[in-house]
Amino acid sequence: MLNIAIDAAGGDHYPHHPVQGAIQALKERAELHITLIGPEKLIQDELDKQHYTSERLHIIDAPDIVGMDEAPAVAVKTKRNSSIVVGLGLHAQGKLDAFFSAGNTGALLAASMFILGKLPGVLRPTIGSIYPSVEGNKFMLDVGANIEVKPEALVQFGIMGKVFAENILNITSPRLGLMNVGEEPEKGREAVRQAYQLLKTRPDFVGNIEGRDVMQAKADIYICDGFVGNLLLKLGESIPENVLQILYSSPASKKLGEQEMQLFKNVLLEALAPFDYQLVGGVPFLGVNGVSMVGHGGSSPLAIKNSVLNAEKFIRLDVNEQIKNALA
Amino acid sequence: MLNIAIDAAGGDHYPHHPVQGAIQALKERAELHITLIGPEKLIQDELDKQHYTSERLHIIDAPDIVGMDEAPAVAVKTKRNSSIVVGLGLHAQGKLDAFFSAGNTGALLAASMFILGKLPGVLRPTIGSIYPSVEGNKFMLDVGANIEVKPEALVQFGIMGKVFAENILNITSPRLGLMNVGEEPEKGREAVRQAYQLLKTRPDFVGNIEGRDVMQAKADIYICDGFVGNLLLKLGESIPENVLQILYSSPASKKLGEQEMQLFKNVLLEALAPFDYQLVGGVPFLGVNGVSMVGHGGSSPLAIKNSVLNAEKFIRLDVNEQIKNALA
Repeated sequence: MLNIAIDAAGGDHYPHHPVQGAIQALKERAELHITLIGPEKLIQDELDKQHYTSERLHIIDAPDIVGMDEAPAVAVKTKRNSSIVVGLGLHAQGKLDAFFSAGNTGALLAASMFILGKLPGVLRPTIGSIYPSVEGNKFMLDVGANIEVKPEALVQFGIMGKVFAENILNITSPRLGLMNVGEEPEKGREAVRQAYQLLKTRPDFVGNIEGRDVMQAKADIYICDGFVGNLLLKLGESIPENVLQILYSSPASKKLGEQEMQLFKNVLLEALAPFDYQLVGGVPFLGVNGVSMVGHGGSSPLAIKNSVLNAEKFIRLDVNEQIKNALA
Repeated sequence: MLNIAIDAAGGDHYPHHPVQGAIQALKERAELHITLIGPEKLIQDELDKQHYTSERLHIIDAPDIVGMDEAPAVAVKTKRNSSIVVGLGLHAQGKLDAFFSAGNTGALLAASMFILGKLPGVLRPTIGSIYPSVEGNKFMLDVGANIEVKPEALVQFGIMGKVFAENILNITSPRLGLMNVGEEPEKGREAVRQAYQLLKTRPDFVGNIEGRDVMQAKADIYICDGFVGNLLLKLGESIPENVLQILYSSPASKKLGEQEMQLFKNVLLEALAPFDYQLVGGVPFLGVNGVSMVGHGGSSPLAIKNSVLNAEKFIRLDVNEQIKNALA
């Protein structure tokens, strides 16, 4: 029986979203145990509000709260009784099988590195994100954990991303692409040019990917450093809302009646739903010696439930063992 | 009388688009002279096809062709009789007032640097682009000329972009924003963190801008290096076409009849037209000692005409003198 922990004191909507996500996961997966970690009374009050009890639901008290904008290293060092430090500590001891948080990403990464350590052979653990395209979801990494990266680490991001995409996103034979400002190997930053040279003999490498090609699905795995990836990810996430706003303020919209506009808005938002991070489950830190998953601060209960299911899949398919083999 | 040169051997559609753009500009601006530079016979044949003659239209023969993907430094060195080298040479001698090309951007930048030189005080000339937002067009720079940049050069990009935006884009009191992965000053790459420290005392600086804020118009001038800017620009340009494709392939689109779909497509494309580079005129290399403008390879005749009008405005308002003063 797997026991997956959820940070009940992380994200913009705790404790209610984590608690509701836990309940949804328990209802959907009859063999799963969930452990909510955070201030005990806060969690129990929320469970009472939801009138929910289950033998498969556990609570571990962790009274310290890590703020969303708190400096990661300081938070991990000083808040020993926070959900993040307590949860990852129990995971490291084998008492929990995975830990999910929608909280402070930096703190979660720092604590994961410090408490779980890296998988053998990994230069830098990384975090990726689903990126929508005209041919379904693709995977981009790094999206913010590693701001400046050596070429060898970029290559590893691609390999780890591939294992994740094959196992968790069900993408067959994922193609690796390197985010760059042109197709030619000599384009771009020094680290990117060197990464190209390291990648070019791989049969799964399809070359440099430009900004215009991301949504065109020219690759399945988009490799970049966390500075570039974070900017591209957040720009992508903003597309549905901004396209609608630009549409509303355009003189062209006068050609639509009120009802047509409402219909169009609904269709557009539904079509662009993959851009909405709240619907997408969390993703793991790839390369750490454990299963530490992070979700967006705004994660809905559905997103948290999906994160738990992703964690379960990650464990059952032993993705970390596959990563070790792929990097060896 | 101003005499503005157009590269008749540059871009994806020469000579017809440059020639047609020249004709449009001459018809719209009665006081302007235009000089087409490229293989003379090619230009004359196209003019004959258009049945167009004007005393204000001139041709200068430049038989060498610089390919769109040719290595810039080599092209500039070996193709002395190319439109770019000939045109910028005549501009440097004061025989032409500006030079526009939709050709090889790298070659144009290299030739501009080599032949025109930099304005006093400029660390790195830069190229920017219009970026659409919910509140009209904003300006992003650098978008590809400078892949790795020192903090002091990033600050200058902001100052030069501001002068350009005030004079050519008619943005009053432009606000400077620094592209970054978070709002906090300590976020991001080293050069970006240092640029923040240099910018923070300026009253026109509004802080770091995240990917999700670009289209939200949180600033008027988006400062970044050319690696990041090129990726963000090309991703932005791809939005209209990709949003449509995602819409078409979504089950949600089944809620629309064929006629409704056609209407929505037209309205959407019209609203998102600012993302279409073919409608937008060229932009100058800011910081060179002259007026050297570059357009997209796919520039339409309209885009080329608009580029000529931008060049005229740039000269009449003496934007270079203003840049010198702003940097002093």
